[in-house]
Amino acid sequence: MKYCSECGQPVEQRIPEGDNRHRYVCVSCDTIHYQNPRIVAGTVPVWEGRILLCRRAIEPRYGYWTLPAGFMENAETTVEAAERETREEALANVQIEGLFSIIDVPHINQVHMFYRATLIDGQFGAGEESLESRLFAVDDIPWDELSFPTVRKTLELFLDDMKTQTYRLHQKDIRRPMAQHG
Amino acid sequence: MKYCSECGQPVEQRIPEGDNRHRYVCVSCDTIHYQNPRIVAGTVPVWEGRILLCRRAIEPRYGYWTLPAGFMENAETTVEAAERETREEALANVQIEGLFSIIDVPHINQVHMFYRATLIDGQFGAGEESLESRLFAVDDIPWDELSFPTVRKTLELFLDDMKTQTYRLHQKDIRRPMAQHG
Repeated sequence: MKYCSECGQPVEQRIPEGDNRHRYVCVSCDTIHYQNPRIVAGTVPVWEGRILLCRRAIEPRYGYWTLPAGFMENAETTVEAAERETREEALANVQIEGLFSIIDVPHINQVHMFYRATLIDGQFGAGEESLESRLFAVDDIPWDELSFPTVRKTLELFLDDMKTQTYRLHQKDIRRPMAQHG
Repeated sequence: MKYCSECGQPVEQRIPEGDNRHRYVCVSCDTIHYQNPRIVAGTVPVWEGRILLCRRAIEPRYGYWTLPAGFMENAETTVEAAERETREEALANVQIEGLFSIIDVPHINQVHMFYRATLIDGQFGAGEESLESRLFAVDDIPWDELSFPTVRKTLELFLDDMKTQTYRLHQKDIRRPMAQHG
C-alpha cells in the first residue's frame, strides 16, 4: 500500500494513537487503513466413497491437485462461499454436511475452512480455474502432487475419520511453509 | 474506495475479465482491489460458573455489555486473536477450552468466532475500550443491555449448553440486523 484509497495522497506506516501496531495512515487525511486476514472456504466433496479433486489451471501451484476452495467474498456466508467455490472450480453442486477443518495460516494472513460435502448428482467438471476434476479412491490420492499444506492436512484428517465414519471438527494451525513435493 | 492504493490514481467499479463480480479497478495501472469479509474473534470467559462481560467504552454501542472480541489481526491465529482481545478489553488472561460459536454475518461482511475460555487466575479489569468488566451469574446476564446480536446468540447457546455441561460447536448465521433493545 502506497497511497490512501480515500484521498489519493501518500500513506506512511506508523502506530496510531491508542493502537499498538503499525498501520498504513494517510499523511493528508489521517485515514487509518487496517489490514486483516482473509478466509479461504472450500469443501471435501465425496461421491460413493471417492473424493473429488481439481487440478489447478492457475498459479500458484499450476497443475497440482487441490480441494475446491477460494477466497470468501463479501455478502456471503462461509457455507455459501464453500458451495460457490465448488461450483466454480469443479462445476459440482454439493450438499454441505458440516464444518470439517479450520486451519489458521498466520504467516500468510489466512484462515482456511473446509466443509464435508456430498455431490448432489455425481456430476462434475472443470471450471475456468481447473484443468480437470477427478474422483479419487482413498488409495489413489495424489499425495505428491497436492497444491497446498492445508489441502494435504485436511485430506489426511478426512481419511483418518473416514475409517471410522466419525467426522468431527478439526482445528489446526500451520505456522511455516511445509516442505513441498513435486 | 476512491483511489488506487498502488498508484494513487482513481478507481472505478467494474467486472474484471474472467470474474463475475464488481471490483474496484484502477483506471491507470489496472490493479484489482478485492474486498473480503473480516473475522471477529472473542471468548466466553468463565470463572467459578460466572461469565465475564465488558461494558463498551467505544462506539458503536457505547455503554452496552459485550463479550471480549475484536477484529483478528494479520500474522495471528484465531485463538491468539481471541486471547489478545480478552487481554486488551478485560485485562484477563484465559485458557482457551475450545471453539464454541461461528456466526456468519454476511450483511456486514463479518464472521464472528467465540471460544470457550477459563480465567487463569480470576483477575480482570477494564481495558482502554471498556468502561468496566464484571462477572455475571447466569441469572443476572443483562439481556436488555447487550451490545450485538452475535454476543446475544453466543450467550444464549452457552447458557443452554451450561445446563448439561456439554459444550459443542454451534454454527449460525445472522442475516439481518436484529431488533435492538435499550
